[in-house]
Amino acid sequence: MHRFDDALTLTSLGDGRYRGRTSPAYANMVGPFGGITNALMLHAVMRHPQRQGEPVALTVNFAAAIADGEFDIVAKPVRTSRSTQHWTIELKQGEDVQTTATAMFALRRVGEGWSGSEASAEVLPGPEGAAPPEALAASPTQGLPAWVRSYDIRAIEGGFERLLAGAAEEQSLTRLWLRNEPPRPLDFESLAAMADGFYPRVFLRLGRRVPAGTVSITTYFHADGATLRAQPAGSHLYGVARGMEFRDGYFDQAAELRTAEGRLLARSTQVVYFKG
Amino acid sequence: MHRFDDALTLTSLGDGRYRGRTSPAYANMVGPFGGITNALMLHAVMRHPQRQGEPVALTVNFAAAIADGEFDIVAKPVRTSRSTQHWTIELKQGEDVQTTATAMFALRRVGEGWSGSEASAEVLPGPEGAAPPEALAASPTQGLPAWVRSYDIRAIEGGFERLLAGAAEEQSLTRLWLRNEPPRPLDFESLAAMADGFYPRVFLRLGRRVPAGTVSITTYFHADGATLRAQPAGSHLYGVARGMEFRDGYFDQAAELRTAEGRLLARSTQVVYFKG
Repeated sequence: MHRFDDALTLTSLGDGRYRGRTSPAYANMVGPFGGITNALMLHAVMRHPQRQGEPVALTVNFAAAIADGEFDIVAKPVRTSRSTQHWTIELKQGEDVQTTATAMFALRRVGEGWSGSEASAEVLPGPEGAAPPEALAASPTQGLPAWVRSYDIRAIEGGFERLLAGAAEEQSLTRLWLRNEPPRPLDFESLAAMADGFYPRVFLRLGRRVPAGTVSITTYFHADGATLRAQPAGSHLYGVARGMEFRDGYFDQAAELRTAEGRLLARSTQVVYFKG
Repeated sequence: MHRFDDALTLTSLGDGRYRGRTSPAYANMVGPFGGITNALMLHAVMRHPQRQGEPVALTVNFAAAIADGEFDIVAKPVRTSRSTQHWTIELKQGEDVQTTATAMFALRRVGEGWSGSEASAEVLPGPEGAAPPEALAASPTQGLPAWVRSYDIRAIEGGFERLLAGAAEEQSLTRLWLRNEPPRPLDFESLAAMADGFYPRVFLRLGRRVPAGTVSITTYFHADGATLRAQPAGSHLYGVARGMEFRDGYFDQAAELRTAEGRLLARSTQVVYFKG
């Protein structure tokens, strides 16, 4: 079994309650990699027997650190219409709520109606002009949390090597290629995990690692499951992230995940606590 | 009493449950203006006796249309630490959940630590170079939903007059000045309402109004209460919004609210259903 699927393993306790266990392969500095928690909250809905459709929006709030060991996730469909479904999700350890989430699922009318994208290159740069992954060095992993070794990351700019170099940067842009390590087919859960695959932007601006942690992340999915399944398992996605406003101990950062051809798959925004 | 405070009036039923009533002054095409619902979900936390700190992040999911009349909001503090507090919030009519939300509050360390903003002009343009509100025409209100008349809106570009002109635009950028009508001091609730004060971007791209509605909106607050209270009650905020990816019946749009001097107060992102 792939280490990602192992980390996502949930045992049904009935009535939308699932039991899981933290995975050493996705450990972060403190507690699990936020991306694996993002994926777990989504996965509890994906495998729920009442689930209808595919994810459009997911917000996950990191209320407290998840301790190593077992946890329960409770997923509840609070409202279902003909084409949409709204969920609330909680991750608990004992009586403590460590993570809350909401999700919106929909039966997408794929290929129907008007479509277009807008000025995306002005928001965050796309993959155009980037060297391909095979022409770039693999990310360093030494001295970095375990989860980094569960991805193959090839930085175009602003990767972990910049972080380890310890120089303060004028801007916090990271552009990279990434895929699961070992390769694994793409699905909504792995996309949700990768949406948090960018370290806190304040590290790049300050040129050092400071206490920091995501407090809330929102991910919008811009692709249907068939589009994800059509991606070759060994292929890298293009990822880009940038910090925005840093003030009073919090900042926000935006990220996008695209295919090598530039097709947007997911866009996320998160707010991060920092002390620096 | 100001119409906004009237619309926010909640009667405590005890144990974090509040009863409210929809307000004709903030009616939209179908049901209430999303901004007033955004503000109400936040207000239930703001006035909760266990509330600690000020809002940092708020996600509101529009699960079903709110019918005219009474509703109950239940706000629950699910996790409180020394400096942060996480909430879940539900709006119900009878047994039906119409709206879900999560919020993160914090005791901000105002003015402490490193601060900065990054390349914001590349994300969405700021107020620099815009004509002041008094030099611009008031927004049309004829043929538009009631909530528009509860604001004084002065479009710099892409306002309601473009929508009413019915021409498809190359891009969906709106820049405007807005304040409550009549004037009212700024607080987190009015900021939350204004964060949704931009009509669906797809209207601008298609040059016509089509069935559309926000399904989820996330707002990050980048100012503390004292900064909001320092804004003169009669002053306009600068607002800017743009659509991003339109596909398969959904699109996302980003918005910012700033002071006339360009100080960022809130940033929001939302995903919107449309049929067009």
